[in-house]
Amino acid sequence: MKKTSNIGKYYYCFPQTVAMIGVQTNIMPAAWHTPISAEPPLYGILISPKRYTYELLIKENGFTVCFVDVSHAQLSAQTGSTSGRTVDKTKAFNITYTQAERVNGPILQDSYAAYECEKFDVKEYGDHFLFVGKIVLLHFQENVVNENRLTNEKKIAPMLYFGKDRYITTDPSSLAIHKRS
Amino acid sequence: MKKTSNIGKYYYCFPQTVAMIGVQTNIMPAAWHTPISAEPPLYGILISPKRYTYELLIKENGFTVCFVDVSHAQLSAQTGSTSGRTVDKTKAFNITYTQAERVNGPILQDSYAAYECEKFDVKEYGDHFLFVGKIVLLHFQENVVNENRLTNEKKIAPMLYFGKDRYITTDPSSLAIHKRS
Repeated sequence: MKKTSNIGKYYYCFPQTVAMIGVQTNIMPAAWHTPISAEPPLYGILISPKRYTYELLIKENGFTVCFVDVSHAQLSAQTGSTSGRTVDKTKAFNITYTQAERVNGPILQDSYAAYECEKFDVKEYGDHFLFVGKIVLLHFQENVVNENRLTNEKKIAPMLYFGKDRYITTDPSSLAIHKRS
Repeated sequence: MKKTSNIGKYYYCFPQTVAMIGVQTNIMPAAWHTPISAEPPLYGILISPKRYTYELLIKENGFTVCFVDVSHAQLSAQTGSTSGRTVDKTKAFNITYTQAERVNGPILQDSYAAYECEKFDVKEYGDHFLFVGKIVLLHFQENVVNENRLTNEKKIAPMLYFGKDRYITTDPSSLAIHKRS
């Protein structure tokens, strides 16, 4: 093992599923996000204050988090490199969506699952802000989610970010159950 | 799309790389974790206060985050279902490690990468605590990390958690670059 205190880009924690973050009619991809709490169901996303999404998140009372197939990687790159300040992304990239019910954000039609999150807390950490949302409504495609509400690895290829413009997906044949003893 | 306000287990955000969290000589797997900030380099982990790791994190000034190949999924399940209160996991599961340099935690010998994190902030959210650490030392296996410090998808099969005891890894042939425009 090699070691360094010159941290720089620390991509080793990837891959991570890409979350498409929606506020008003704007969308951006985020690879920095995580569940925060089960009860109440809280979800956290990290957003740079340079982002237009940050401005919208400060104004609005919530956001959406959508998960799409890896076939949308080009869309992720496009929505991640343009700003809603100058581009209406849903029009520019032909994104079809419906309006969320409980918050002001889009639910992408191609999502296999999506969370509607009410803003719960905001905290600045270094060069990003943690926005914590309470999940108040779940959307999911019934044909890719089984009776335990797990995503079916054979029916969807999750879009994973692997750092520095690299996208990858899962190998469904590698799925294995390892029961807790 | 179906929808429900009965949130329950919201596994749709998975898969996510498993982080092996180390404090003192104890180890537990966590699927809830994320980068928080690039500069300073901050990393966040979510830990239930029921966990022995929580007690250790409160006492100590830092923790380690190790990433291992999917061949360690059984080890992840074992360390996740036993408690350091009653089991010396490194002995019970024959885990080889070296002592971290900057914090009191283990660096698993089989890690392809690991972060040493000094405790930076602690915040309670719902039924978990967010521990934010400042990454002060990076460890990585040179043979799996390229010149841009990216993990080589052909040389390592990252251990991804997909919810409810399910583990999966990536399909290296699916890797694609999608440049930001």
